[in-house]
Amino acid sequence: MTRRPFNFSAGPAALPEEVLQQVAREMLDWHGSGMSVMEMSHRGKEFIAICEQAEADLRELLAVPSHFRILFMQGGGLAENAIVPLNLSRGGQVDFVVTGSWSRKSAQEARRYADVHIAADASLSGAGAIPSPASWTLRPGTSYVHLCSNETIDGLEFHALPDLRALGCDAPLVIDFSSHVLSRPVDWSRVGLAFGGAQKNIGPAGLTLVIVREDLLGRALPICPSAFDYKTVAEAQSMYNTPPTFSIYVAGLVFQWLKRFEYGGQRGLAAIEQRNLDKATLLYDALDRSAVFENRVARECRSRMNVPFFLRGAHDTPALHQAFLDEARDRQLLQLKGHKSVGGMRASIYNAMSLDGVHALVDFLKDFETRHG
Amino acid sequence: MTRRPFNFSAGPAALPEEVLQQVAREMLDWHGSGMSVMEMSHRGKEFIAICEQAEADLRELLAVPSHFRILFMQGGGLAENAIVPLNLSRGGQVDFVVTGSWSRKSAQEARRYADVHIAADASLSGAGAIPSPASWTLRPGTSYVHLCSNETIDGLEFHALPDLRALGCDAPLVIDFSSHVLSRPVDWSRVGLAFGGAQKNIGPAGLTLVIVREDLLGRALPICPSAFDYKTVAEAQSMYNTPPTFSIYVAGLVFQWLKRFEYGGQRGLAAIEQRNLDKATLLYDALDRSAVFENRVARECRSRMNVPFFLRGAHDTPALHQAFLDEARDRQLLQLKGHKSVGGMRASIYNAMSLDGVHALVDFLKDFETRHG
Repeated sequence: MTRRPFNFSAGPAALPEEVLQQVAREMLDWHGSGMSVMEMSHRGKEFIAICEQAEADLRELLAVPSHFRILFMQGGGLAENAIVPLNLSRGGQVDFVVTGSWSRKSAQEARRYADVHIAADASLSGAGAIPSPASWTLRPGTSYVHLCSNETIDGLEFHALPDLRALGCDAPLVIDFSSHVLSRPVDWSRVGLAFGGAQKNIGPAGLTLVIVREDLLGRALPICPSAFDYKTVAEAQSMYNTPPTFSIYVAGLVFQWLKRFEYGGQRGLAAIEQRNLDKATLLYDALDRSAVFENRVARECRSRMNVPFFLRGAHDTPALHQAFLDEARDRQLLQLKGHKSVGGMRASIYNAMSLDGVHALVDFLKDFETRHG
Repeated sequence: MTRRPFNFSAGPAALPEEVLQQVAREMLDWHGSGMSVMEMSHRGKEFIAICEQAEADLRELLAVPSHFRILFMQGGGLAENAIVPLNLSRGGQVDFVVTGSWSRKSAQEARRYADVHIAADASLSGAGAIPSPASWTLRPGTSYVHLCSNETIDGLEFHALPDLRALGCDAPLVIDFSSHVLSRPVDWSRVGLAFGGAQKNIGPAGLTLVIVREDLLGRALPICPSAFDYKTVAEAQSMYNTPPTFSIYVAGLVFQWLKRFEYGGQRGLAAIEQRNLDKATLLYDALDRSAVFENRVARECRSRMNVPFFLRGAHDTPALHQAFLDEARDRQLLQLKGHKSVGGMRASIYNAMSLDGVHALVDFLKDFETRHG
């Protein structure tokens, strides 16, 4: 194999090649322990060291303040849609900002536990744009405000988080940052809780990351399962039940890869953010210049991670769509099919995607247009 | 490395060496796909094939009847302690048979959702034995009866499941078989639902197995999170949310290893059961003959998987206990420390533990006794 194919999967998604190589090397014997990480007790000194290092590296990368707790959990973003209101709603009011499929799903699930209000709905104000925070109808008694800071399916991203206090709202902000975590800094002064599945920018599916402000612990409803009570999990350093140990280990290797990542004279999160910006600019510019392809999201809220695109007008036929996917695969450009709920194509260009990968996609878009435009 | 150390961890636990080797080999490119299994969309044809094969192999190995559904979930046994009553209690009565730490924990958690009754309690009838089913005080209106068919910490195992109908009880039997799944056959005619964490006999922590009779689907309480509603998960073939894809892949390799496993002229589950019996007999015989060590569980309900043992009488000093663990580690016999709640030592001899490993442990027990007895 000269080079690996470029994998544009929306998740589970591509991982850094050197992380995969290290995982393979250490598979039968982690650091002379005689054990695979999969075979270690989660209560043994080896795994505890792995877990503590992963947490410390993540805290450093994302500059997580000391009054926030980092929890490694299970269930994915979809389970968190229930676990968050079980922990934070107090059975009262919760307000949602709906900007796409994921925030809509989150709101729907929260109705099991709380009085849900849609404070803003992107689909009502013309699709493809995030309603201005000034227009949100937040309720005075809301327990928290939920938004999805990057909509994986729709390709919308919050490039700045709202300042709820400036909007006259004292409630904590909950963000689902599954699909852009670690692609850019987080303004923790505006956040009460952030959660995300690991399978985009962190590591294997099955690990869920929760970062929660300490004063929000201890509010769980009595019906919240112990294993999903943030206070219980925090007090046990994510070891209340057996955590997904191997996934935490791989995540830790990804964190170390990010810490040493260099680009444009920078290092770490600043470097990866710069490369993500360059990749996104390259791809959106190509789409905007194309007569065959188009992205339909307003420029100011286009996602740097997930780029859905479609065939324009008369070009939008099932045959041409299939030809695109088949030719892409022949060029080793994998998993470009759009989400079934919206159709079209989608390129997810997470942290592990190189600039070369996006250049290869852009070259293919141009070539495809020359032949089929 | 001439041979790998013998790893007696109670879980996450040792995996077959050839499975780890295959995982390492396929880490960067699964079957020519150009992707690691960690990097595949769970909705792509490659991963769907992996998942379907794993499910079919498991169904074959455990002879799961067609009116049972196999679900791959997340959260571990501890989360299932809540998820089972959320799905099956109907908010009414549930009866528990308490034979050790795990069934006690399960009963405690179920109190959040149901009227819990302890139908039998091993700790009240003299520890170290399972109360006879004829003595259980099952209630006529119970929604289900829960037992832990192998108590990992206490080392008690049900060698036959109770026939609830013969006891005059129509309710389904729920078994937590986390720590002996796939070590022996299951009598499905006596079971309504079986669940278990993967991290003993199946694969990496973070995957939870649920096998449920079809007629028990669709009973979830409205407060049950969608991601944990058995009917929702079953209808989506375990893909309602992103499943722990890599863990399912490793589990599938373990299933294939088991299918080709040969021992004593047999193959598959019958072969592994015979080896498990031989391993357990070897270890318990050594403990029973020892003047220094002892196992305290009644012979008829000793676990074939988890063998807790203690220093006898005057030998039971912290210094000798530490000497045992240190010398064991020097001999490459790993993770023999007992659970913190009961102390002492514990040898978990799951499917992946070879007969050689148990011989090495028995030789060490004898040698230790010669020197310290």
